Amino acid sequence: MKYAREMLREVEGYVPGEQPKMAGIVKLNTNENPYPPSPRVLQAVREISTELIRKYPDPGSVRLREAIASRFGYGGPDWVVAGNGMDDVLAMAIRAFVDPGDTIVSPYPTYTLYETLSALHGATFQAVQLDGEFELPEEIHGVKARMIFIPRPNAPTGVASPIRAMERLCREFAGLVFIDEAYADFCGDTCIDFPKRFENAIIGRTFSKSYSLCGLRLGYAIARPEVIAEFMKVRDSYNVNAVAQLGGLAAFEDTDYFQSSVARIRKNRDWLTSALQDAGFRVPPSQANFLLAQWKGTPPAREIFAALRERAIIVRYFDAPRLQDSLRITVGSEAEIEKLIDALREILPAPSTSFSVLD
Amino acid sequence: MKYAREMLREVEGYVPGEQPKMAGIVKLNTNENPYPPSPRVLQAVREISTELIRKYPDPGSVRLREAIASRFGYGGPDWVVAGNGMDDVLAMAIRAFVDPGDTIVSPYPTYTLYETLSALHGATFQAVQLDGEFELPEEIHGVKARMIFIPRPNAPTGVASPIRAMERLCREFAGLVFIDEAYADFCGDTCIDFPKRFENAIIGRTFSKSYSLCGLRLGYAIARPEVIAEFMKVRDSYNVNAVAQLGGLAAFEDTDYFQSSVARIRKNRDWLTSALQDAGFRVPPSQANFLLAQWKGTPPAREIFAALRERAIIVRYFDAPRLQDSLRITVGSEAEIEKLIDALREILPAPSTSFSVLD
Repeated sequence: MKYAREMLREVEGYVPGEQPKMAGIVKLNTNENPYPPSPRVLQAVREISTELIRKYPDPGSVRLREAIASRFGYGGPDWVVAGNGMDDVLAMAIRAFVDPGDTIVSPYPTYTLYETLSALHGATFQAVQLDGEFELPEEIHGVKARMIFIPRPNAPTGVASPIRAMERLCREFAGLVFIDEAYADFCGDTCIDFPKRFENAIIGRTFSKSYSLCGLRLGYAIARPEVIAEFMKVRDSYNVNAVAQLGGLAAFEDTDYFQSSVARIRKNRDWLTSALQDAGFRVPPSQANFLLAQWKGTPPAREIFAALRERAIIVRYFDAPRLQDSLRITVGSEAEIEKLIDALREILPAPSTSFSVLD
Repeated sequence: MKYAREMLREVEGYVPGEQPKMAGIVKLNTNENPYPPSPRVLQAVREISTELIRKYPDPGSVRLREAIASRFGYGGPDWVVAGNGMDDVLAMAIRAFVDPGDTIVSPYPTYTLYETLSALHGATFQAVQLDGEFELPEEIHGVKARMIFIPRPNAPTGVASPIRAMERLCREFAGLVFIDEAYADFCGDTCIDFPKRFENAIIGRTFSKSYSLCGLRLGYAIARPEVIAEFMKVRDSYNVNAVAQLGGLAAFEDTDYFQSSVARIRKNRDWLTSALQDAGFRVPPSQANFLLAQWKGTPPAREIFAALRERAIIVRYFDAPRLQDSLRITVGSEAEIEKLIDALREILPAPSTSFSVLD
C-alpha cells in the first residue's frame, strides 16, 4: 500500500482475546469479572440525562480524578490522569515519555500490548526473562531504558513481585517505572503509594476488572503532578466519555459492593487453584483474577484448550515461548468454575499427576 | 522535568472550548447540537444490560461499521473504522500514515487540533492560508506533504469548498487527503463517495454534531479497505465503549429524527445569519452548525465576547491571526438565538453598520 508507513509494515496490531457472541458460553478468556458491576452503576447509567449525551463530557474528568486522589491520599486531581481504559493510559505513557528509537523494557512473559505499543511508536522493545518462578530476575535492575513496564500482579502468570523488589527497581532504575496494577485489587498489597515516595513511579489502574466495567472503558494513572502534566499534553481532550465518568464514579463510591465482589473472587481463586492442582496442573501463586494452569501431561495444553472450546468453555491459550504448556484461566463465578472442573474431568485422563510425577 | 521528551517541551496540548458547569447559560461555544439526541438513543442507553457493562465491548464495533458502510453504499465494514470521537480518528490517521519528520498540511484558519496532533507526533506542520473568502487557494494544489487535512465545511469559518476543488485536490495531491466532514450533515453536498473514486481519500465523520452525541464520543472514517487496514493496526483494540456503539447505532437508524434535527438547525442558521447581518456583522456563507461573525466596528469583537459572557452567553473567541475581529457562534435553538440577538442589541451601539460602511 503506497501510503503506508514503512515502520508499520511488519506490525500486526494487538489481537485481543475473542469476544464470542454465542449465548450460554463460559467465558474465561479475557479476565472479565464474573459478577455484575455495582447496582449503582446501572442506576447511574439509566438515569443519564439527554444533556449529558448531547454535550461534550468534562474534558478533565475532574470529579472522578478528585475522588481517586482523595481515596489514595493524594493532594488533588493533578496527581491523576484518566483514560479510555488502561490501554489508553499505557499508550499515553509511551507517547508522553518515550522518543522513537528509545528503549522500552518489560518482563517476559507478560501483557503483549507493551511490545505492540512500543512497535507502533517506533521504540525499541527489550524483554527481560522472568525467572523459573516468574519472579523478577536480578538482571532487570541493570537494564538501561527510558521506561519499564511491570505489571503487578503480572499477566498472564498472576504472580506479584515483592514490594521490596518494586521499591528497589524504582530506586535504581534511571527511567520511569510504570507499574501496571490492573489486577492489584485482587492482590494483598499494592504500590499505590509509590508516587509519594518515588518521582519515577507511575501506577496504572483500571475499572475493567475489580469494578466489572470493561464495557465502559475507564482506566487511570497516578504519578507526580509534573509527570501527569506530560500525560495531559498528549491526551485526547475528550478521551473519557460521559457515561464512563458517571458510571466509574458510581462504582468507585460503592466500596462495600466492591469489597464483597473482590473477596468473592479471591475465594473462588483459592478454590479453582486447588481444583486445578488436584487435576494435575501446576499453578503459580496468583494474586490476580486469573491464573496460569501449567500442564506437562497428555493431551497437550493446546488440545485441552480446544476440547474445552468444544464444550463452550473459552479459556486463553498463548502459542508463545514458556506458555505453550499452559492455559490462562479467568477466575469465574462458582457455577462457571464447576462447569470448567467437570469438563476437565471429561477431557483429562483420570485424576492426573502430571506435575506430582515430574516435579 | 527530567523524564520529559524534549520534543514536547514547547507543546501545550489542545485546549478545548470551555465546558462551564453553571445552569442557565446559553452555550454557543463548542458547536454542540442544541436539540437532544433521538429518543431511541436514550432508550437504548437506559435499557443497557449489566452484561454489556461487565464485558469488553466488541473490539471491532462491527454492527455499527456495517450500518455505516451499508448506508453509504460501501461493500462492508472493512471500508470503515470507528473511533472514540473524531479526535481519535484524526490521531489514528496521523499515526497510521505519517512518520515523524514528515509534513502535514492544513488550511488556515482551521481546526487547531491538526497542528497540535502534528506537533505531538513530531511531524512538520504547514499551514496554507485560505483566500479572502476563506476558499482554498490555488497554492494548496502544489503542496508536498504526506497528508493533508481539509475540513469541509471548514471550522471556524463554516465555508465548504466546492466539490470540484476537492476532486482536483484528490487527483493532484500525492499523499492522503483527509476530508474532515464533522459538519457535513449540515451542508448541501458531501465527499462521502470519494473513497470509491480516489484511493487517497479518507472521509472523517462524527456523531457529535448532527446526532447530538458529543457525550458518547463516536466518530468514524471511510476509506479504501487497504487504508482502513492501516488504521486498524494503530487503533486501541477497545477504543469505542459499549454505550457509544449502542447509542450510535440507535441514533444512526433513526433517520427521520436525524433529518428533522438537521433541517431545524439549517433553518436556524439562516435566521441567525440574517439577524447578525442586520446587526452589522459580516457572515461568510456557512454550511455548518456554526458561523463566523466578523465585526469591524466598536466595541471590538473581544469585548463583545466578554460582554456576552457577562450575560451568561458563551461564544468562542480566537485570539489568533485573521480571527481577532470575529466570534464563532454555534447555531443554537430558537430561544438561544433570541437571547443572543437581544444581548447583542444591548451591547452593540445602535443598529450598526460596520460592514455596510467598510465594504
